[in-house]
Amino acid sequence: MEIRELAARARNASLQLAAADTKTKNKALRAIAEILTQKSNEIEKANETDRQISEQNHLAAPLLKRLKFDAAKIKETVQGIESLISLPDPVGQTLSATELDKGLELYRVSCPIGVIGVIFESRPDALVQISTLCLKSGNAVLLKGGSEASHTNRILAGLISEASAQAGIPQGWIQLLETRAEVNEMLKLDEYIDLIIPRGSNEFVRYIMEHSSIPVLGHADGICHVYVDKEADPGMAVSITVDSKTQYVAVCNAAETLLVHEAIAPTFLPAAQKALESLHVELRGCEKTRQIISVKPASEKDWSTEYLDYILSVKVVKDVDEAIDHINTYGSGHTDSIVTRNKATALHFMDRVDSANVFWNCSTRFSDGYRYGLGAEVGISTNKIHARGPVGLEGLVIYKWKLKGNGHTVAEYATGRKKFTHKRLSKKFEG
Amino acid sequence: MEIRELAARARNASLQLAAADTKTKNKALRAIAEILTQKSNEIEKANETDRQISEQNHLAAPLLKRLKFDAAKIKETVQGIESLISLPDPVGQTLSATELDKGLELYRVSCPIGVIGVIFESRPDALVQISTLCLKSGNAVLLKGGSEASHTNRILAGLISEASAQAGIPQGWIQLLETRAEVNEMLKLDEYIDLIIPRGSNEFVRYIMEHSSIPVLGHADGICHVYVDKEADPGMAVSITVDSKTQYVAVCNAAETLLVHEAIAPTFLPAAQKALESLHVELRGCEKTRQIISVKPASEKDWSTEYLDYILSVKVVKDVDEAIDHINTYGSGHTDSIVTRNKATALHFMDRVDSANVFWNCSTRFSDGYRYGLGAEVGISTNKIHARGPVGLEGLVIYKWKLKGNGHTVAEYATGRKKFTHKRLSKKFEG
Repeated sequence: MEIRELAARARNASLQLAAADTKTKNKALRAIAEILTQKSNEIEKANETDRQISEQNHLAAPLLKRLKFDAAKIKETVQGIESLISLPDPVGQTLSATELDKGLELYRVSCPIGVIGVIFESRPDALVQISTLCLKSGNAVLLKGGSEASHTNRILAGLISEASAQAGIPQGWIQLLETRAEVNEMLKLDEYIDLIIPRGSNEFVRYIMEHSSIPVLGHADGICHVYVDKEADPGMAVSITVDSKTQYVAVCNAAETLLVHEAIAPTFLPAAQKALESLHVELRGCEKTRQIISVKPASEKDWSTEYLDYILSVKVVKDVDEAIDHINTYGSGHTDSIVTRNKATALHFMDRVDSANVFWNCSTRFSDGYRYGLGAEVGISTNKIHARGPVGLEGLVIYKWKLKGNGHTVAEYATGRKKFTHKRLSKKFEG
Repeated sequence: MEIRELAARARNASLQLAAADTKTKNKALRAIAEILTQKSNEIEKANETDRQISEQNHLAAPLLKRLKFDAAKIKETVQGIESLISLPDPVGQTLSATELDKGLELYRVSCPIGVIGVIFESRPDALVQISTLCLKSGNAVLLKGGSEASHTNRILAGLISEASAQAGIPQGWIQLLETRAEVNEMLKLDEYIDLIIPRGSNEFVRYIMEHSSIPVLGHADGICHVYVDKEADPGMAVSITVDSKTQYVAVCNAAETLLVHEAIAPTFLPAAQKALESLHVELRGCEKTRQIISVKPASEKDWSTEYLDYILSVKVVKDVDEAIDHINTYGSGHTDSIVTRNKATALHFMDRVDSANVFWNCSTRFSDGYRYGLGAEVGISTNKIHARGPVGLEGLVIYKWKLKGNGHTVAEYATGRKKFTHKRLSKKFEG
């Protein structure tokens, strides 16, 4: 089938799915959890096929590991669906209510966005996670996984489609794309697809962002900073720097650059060096840094590099404003933390650093949907509109305005016969 | 100066402006209102120059009328600024607060988007309105008005810049573009500009939407529908149809297509015809319509035409679902209204019509920021993300996550030494 036709089907299904009630959606989620458990063996077999082919094709070890979808992973994924069932329905929430005049009531009510296009690499659990998030929020979804996981993805999408249809969800809401060419096609279908969510490497996400005519929710780089102010507690600053850099180096919210106020640099830098080098972190410093500690030189390129590795660039700055400038120039708007005892300095930093997550006296590694208590995470966004930072289910909904009258016409207000009351109401839309 | 440099300056100013307090912003708005009043004569003189040149260039009468910025218009614009001052600051609102653990508090706080690019035609009051909305919401703004208003726009932008700088707002937050070529340049500057708001004709807005790599907030077409259900009150249905079509034909929320349930068509259509034709509305009907009333035939093209004129296309449908299908196929996602006494039918329609504004027993003409009580209107959006329908100041803000700790590191939670509490707090972020 043509990708345009798949998308049109998804759009049609989305219009029905938008009206599905919470009970039906949760029933479908339960049916999906059950079928994945029942068909665990078949899923594992498909996944083994994928892994055999990938091994023959000499797929890199980390990718092979991510591709693995065994009984333990399936169980974990099913638990994720169960916790999703327990979350409140993000659709149908009355966000505001206003009486415009007697008998004329305006409600802003949350509703699904429509059709979401999701592109992900390797990990088959991403398919289950994102499609169930879309179902819970009433959105249709077009999915494109890595070709190395094609057997696994095909059986998963088939089972999800089957189980949800039996539970009363309109068919066509979940569509699987199979070729890379289809992705490029999909990125142009802005008449059918409302939002693209890419998950994967930063090169991959950047490619999607640059080639889509559809809004994209996500982030490419994660160039995060820790700024150690002159009024920082030195011990706390070392501990936050170490955690931000080393707690897990391969992730977007790990720190890549350390900024240090010149007044604290002479005492702080030797302590930081000792702690970081004992954990095998390579430091690359600016000139001023290298006058204090013996480390490799940092080049201009280091300030905009996401190492995702045991490397940290270090720069001495003359004050908090130079730190803010540096972050707003070289950062990626993801997560940046200040360590200081001075509240005014902290607020100054948090107001002016233009990032999704601005922290005070804690590790950059906290910016994450699970740690934020969002329940389920759609992804982390560095967008400046719609949703920013870790995005939960609420990132998959928008709202519509529902106005209920009793024959009201505008002419009556234009002529002054009637006047608007604009009274805030505290009630839900119920029709 | 290069447009790229203007945009970079706006971006720099936006980072300062994001931290401006409410008092300073309101002081600047007051200073702008004062200077516009003081310099009223000079503004009028510049506007006369623009109108003389435009007359010589044979600009069409409606455009000449929109171009006019006389003492009365200036006074009205100043009143708009005064009411904007009285609105609450959309920036710095705590949207949610969560205790992640003892001493580790997460706040979602509203903040400006950053740099807004606004492109508008003819009307100079749009320059004042949109730049003051941006100032109130802490955003920098790049403005491009119609070349026919260049003298007026230049003096207005100059006065706004001067008055706001004297009140303590960072310079560079308002930048005026002067040539059409600069607009095309601007649409590519996604590293500096965060959102484009185009105001003007639908061809113009569509052009911007198709050529921008930056998110666009707005709407091109307004193909709005009234659906008269079989259970409609016939008198109410006529009155709503008449108001939706004729109260003001040249606007986006005027109805362009009337859909009528086949069971009510034989009695309703003659009554509707009588009322509409007495107001000089030309009707264009489908075959079934023309079996009941004598009107011109509607072609396929009529269903997707925004007349903005005294013309209404009419289609008889077999049920509410055919009406919904028609709207979701040919409509523009703007405003659609159902007339019915049946609550279940109304809710069915409002859940499934995929439009920004879905109405029940009232005129489509109500979808408007002023009528909705939003105070100031940025525009009407048919986007599916960020903001939908009439957009007030809240459409110009996003949020950032502020996390305040006391040396907290993720390692303590990863190893299980500490556990998250995820307790909802009811307090504001104050640092």
